[in-house]
Amino acid sequence: MENLTRSDFEALDRNDVLADFAKQYYVPEDHIYMVGNSLGVMPKAVKQRMDDVLEKEWADDLVSSWNCNHWFELPYRIGNKIAQIIGADDGEVVVTDSVSVNLFKLVAAALNIQKGTSRSVILSEKGNFPTDLYVMQGLTAMLGPSVKLVTVEREEIEDAITQDTAVVLLTDVHYRTGHLLDKKRITELAQSKGALVIWDLCHSAGALPVYLNDINADMATGCGYKYLSGGPGAPSFVFVAKRWHDALEQPLSGWWGHATPFEFTDDYSPARGIGQMLCGTQGVLGLSALEVAIDVFLTTDMLLIREKSSKMTDLFLRLIAQQCSSYNFEIKSPQKAAERGSHIALGHPNGYQIIQALSAHSVKGDFRAPDTLRFGLTPLTLKYVDIWDAVSRLKDIMKKETWKDPKYNLASKVT
Amino acid sequence: MENLTRSDFEALDRNDVLADFAKQYYVPEDHIYMVGNSLGVMPKAVKQRMDDVLEKEWADDLVSSWNCNHWFELPYRIGNKIAQIIGADDGEVVVTDSVSVNLFKLVAAALNIQKGTSRSVILSEKGNFPTDLYVMQGLTAMLGPSVKLVTVEREEIEDAITQDTAVVLLTDVHYRTGHLLDKKRITELAQSKGALVIWDLCHSAGALPVYLNDINADMATGCGYKYLSGGPGAPSFVFVAKRWHDALEQPLSGWWGHATPFEFTDDYSPARGIGQMLCGTQGVLGLSALEVAIDVFLTTDMLLIREKSSKMTDLFLRLIAQQCSSYNFEIKSPQKAAERGSHIALGHPNGYQIIQALSAHSVKGDFRAPDTLRFGLTPLTLKYVDIWDAVSRLKDIMKKETWKDPKYNLASKVT
Repeated sequence: MENLTRSDFEALDRNDVLADFAKQYYVPEDHIYMVGNSLGVMPKAVKQRMDDVLEKEWADDLVSSWNCNHWFELPYRIGNKIAQIIGADDGEVVVTDSVSVNLFKLVAAALNIQKGTSRSVILSEKGNFPTDLYVMQGLTAMLGPSVKLVTVEREEIEDAITQDTAVVLLTDVHYRTGHLLDKKRITELAQSKGALVIWDLCHSAGALPVYLNDINADMATGCGYKYLSGGPGAPSFVFVAKRWHDALEQPLSGWWGHATPFEFTDDYSPARGIGQMLCGTQGVLGLSALEVAIDVFLTTDMLLIREKSSKMTDLFLRLIAQQCSSYNFEIKSPQKAAERGSHIALGHPNGYQIIQALSAHSVKGDFRAPDTLRFGLTPLTLKYVDIWDAVSRLKDIMKKETWKDPKYNLASKVT
Repeated sequence: MENLTRSDFEALDRNDVLADFAKQYYVPEDHIYMVGNSLGVMPKAVKQRMDDVLEKEWADDLVSSWNCNHWFELPYRIGNKIAQIIGADDGEVVVTDSVSVNLFKLVAAALNIQKGTSRSVILSEKGNFPTDLYVMQGLTAMLGPSVKLVTVEREEIEDAITQDTAVVLLTDVHYRTGHLLDKKRITELAQSKGALVIWDLCHSAGALPVYLNDINADMATGCGYKYLSGGPGAPSFVFVAKRWHDALEQPLSGWWGHATPFEFTDDYSPARGIGQMLCGTQGVLGLSALEVAIDVFLTTDMLLIREKSSKMTDLFLRLIAQQCSSYNFEIKSPQKAAERGSHIALGHPNGYQIIQALSAHSVKGDFRAPDTLRFGLTPLTLKYVDIWDAVSRLKDIMKKETWKDPKYNLASKVT
C-alpha cells in the first residue's frame, strides 16, 4: 500500500457526499473534536428550538403546552423518529429516562416473561460498559437468589448461552475497543436456546445502521447524547418488539406508563404498547433538544454514514501504521471495519499523558484507564483531513516526547 | 366579618414584601395563572442560563464541560440548594431522575433497611397521588409476597401504623384537596413503632417551609416543576437523612451512583453519602434551568412565602363564601390555613365546564376528575388582587351560567 499524503484526504473531502452536514452543527474551529462518541457536538437547530420551548411553550403557553404543544407526545414522537434510525417500527420505541434506568426496566421485564421457567441467568460480557453490569447487580440483589448475573469473556459468550439463560444483555459496540458484535447471529442463537436478548446500542445508534426488526431483536436501549448529538445527558430510548408488548410487565410503573393517567385512579393499569415503558414525567427541555438532533439524521442515510465511518476508521489505522509505528501503540480496535464501530482505541502505557498533550495541541480524544486512548470519528461532523491532522499531531507529540512534560501528568477527569 | 372589596386586595399588594419577586418571572399579562402548582411560571434568569449552557458549555466547551463547567456536580450543588428550602443539611439531597423513579429507589432502600425484621407492609393513603401508589404496586409485584402495599383513608393512617409496618409513604400536601398532614407527628409515631417514613413533597417544596431535619425525617422526594418553577418535567430531588447513608442499598445502581465511576470497574460499589441515590447520566439542560429557579427561592424566606400563601388561601375561601355561596361549591380544602398547602380545591358537579369557561375568561385553574376545581396560589408570582379578580370572574360565570355553553363541554385534558 502506498503511503498516504494530506492531499489524499483533501481529495476525499472534496468528494464527500456528507460534507455539507457539518454546517448544521457547531463544529469547533480551534481544535479537532474526536469525542463525539462521548458527547456529540451541538446541532445549530437546537438553539432556535430551545428558544421556542422556553419563550413560547413554557413562558407563554404554560401548562396548556402539555396538549397544545404536544409535550405529552414527545416520548412517542421522538421514539418513532429514532425507530427509523435503528430499524424499528412506529410504536416500538419511546424516549425516556436514562440508559441505566431503562436497562433495569428491560431486564426486569424480560425476566418476567421468563417467569415460570427454570432459567435463572442474566448473561453479559466481562468489561461491558460498567452501568450495564452495575444495574444488573442492583437488580439481582433485589430479586434474591432466583436470578444471577454471569459475565464471561467476549469470545465465550456464544458457548455460555444455555438452557439456564433467561436474558442476554450485551453492548453491540464495545465502549472501550469499538469491537462490534454480530447482533443477528447472537440474537438467533440466544432465541434458539429460549433466551431473550437486550442490546445496549449506546455506541451504535447514530454511528451505524441497526436493523432491529430485521434481526428479530427483542429489546434494546441506547443513548441520545453520543453519536446522536442530543445534548448533555439527553434522555435515552427504549425499544421493545411489538410481539412482546402484551406480555410486558416492568417494575417502574409510574403514572406516565398508565393506560389512563388522567383518571387518577389508585390502581396501576399499564398503557398498551410501548407507552408502558414510561415511568415519571420527562424533561421537556432535554426531549426537545434531542428531537432536533434526530431530525438531522432523518435527512440522510445510515448507510452513507456507515460508509464514511468505515473509511475514516480504516484511514486512521493506516495512518497510525504509517506514521506512528515506532511508538508502540497497541491497536485495540478490530482491524476489519465490519467488526468495529466508529471509534478507534489505541493502547499505550502513557496514554493519559499523551491524550493530555494532544488536547493541548488541539486534538481532543479521551482516555479510559488504565491505558486506552479513544478517538471517536463522527461522520457528520468530521472531515477526512481532520484524521490526517490528528495523527500528524500525535506523531509530533510522540517524536518530540512532548507528552513527558510534567504538566500533562496532572490528575484530571476526561470523559 | 365585613365584606371584602377590591381595594382591600390592592392595599395588601401595596404592602406585600414579596411583591417585587414577580418581576423575576414571566408572569402572564393576559390571564391570571393559578396552575403554578402544576407547572410553575418561567423565571427570567432561565433564558440567559440556557443560552450559556447551549452556546458556551455545550457548543464551545463540549465534553470538557463535565469538569470545567462542573456538570458532574450539578445534582449535588442543586441538591444542596434545595436542602436549604426543605430543612435538610448539605450532602443530604441530590437532584436526579423523576419523582416516580426516586420513590422506587427510596422505598426499596427503606425495605432493605428493614430486611431481617418481620415487617412486611408499605403503608400509604388511599387517593394519594397516583404515581406513589403505582410505583409501589410495581415494586411489590417485583418483590413478591414478602411485602405488600396497604392503603387506608387519611383519618385511619395513624392507627394503621403497627409493628407490621416497614415503610410509611405519604404525600404531605394532598394533590387534590390541599390537605396538609402533620409530618412531625406522623414521623414520630411511625418511628416509635419502628417504621421508616418517606415524604412526597411534590406539593409543598417551594410552597411552605419544610423542616425535614427538625422533624427527624428519614427520606423524602419532590418535584422541581411545580412551586419551584424549575421547568416542564424538571428533575426531582431526593433526600435521605445522613444517619441512613451507611445503611443505604437502592436497586437502581447505575454508574453515576458509583464510588469511583471513572475507574470503570465491573463491580458496583456505591458512593458514600447521598451520591448513591444517583443512577444514570442526568440531563444538563433540565438541571440548569432548575438551578436558577431555585436561586430565586434562596433570596427570600419560606416563612414569608408561607405567610402570603396562607393569607391568599384564606382570602380565596372568604371570597368564595362572600361571592359564590349560592352556587353550591363544596369546599374540599381545609378551612384552617395551617392544615392546607397553597392551593384551594372546590367541588362542583360541573367542574369541568366551569374550569373551561373560566379559562376562556382569562383565569386558569385546573380540573381533576370527577368534580374538583383546583386553584394554585403561588406567592412569588400572584398578586392579592388576582384573587379578587379570579373569584369575581368565577361569580360572573356562575351567575350568567356561561359555563353551560356547549363549547365548554368538549373533551380535553387539563393538567
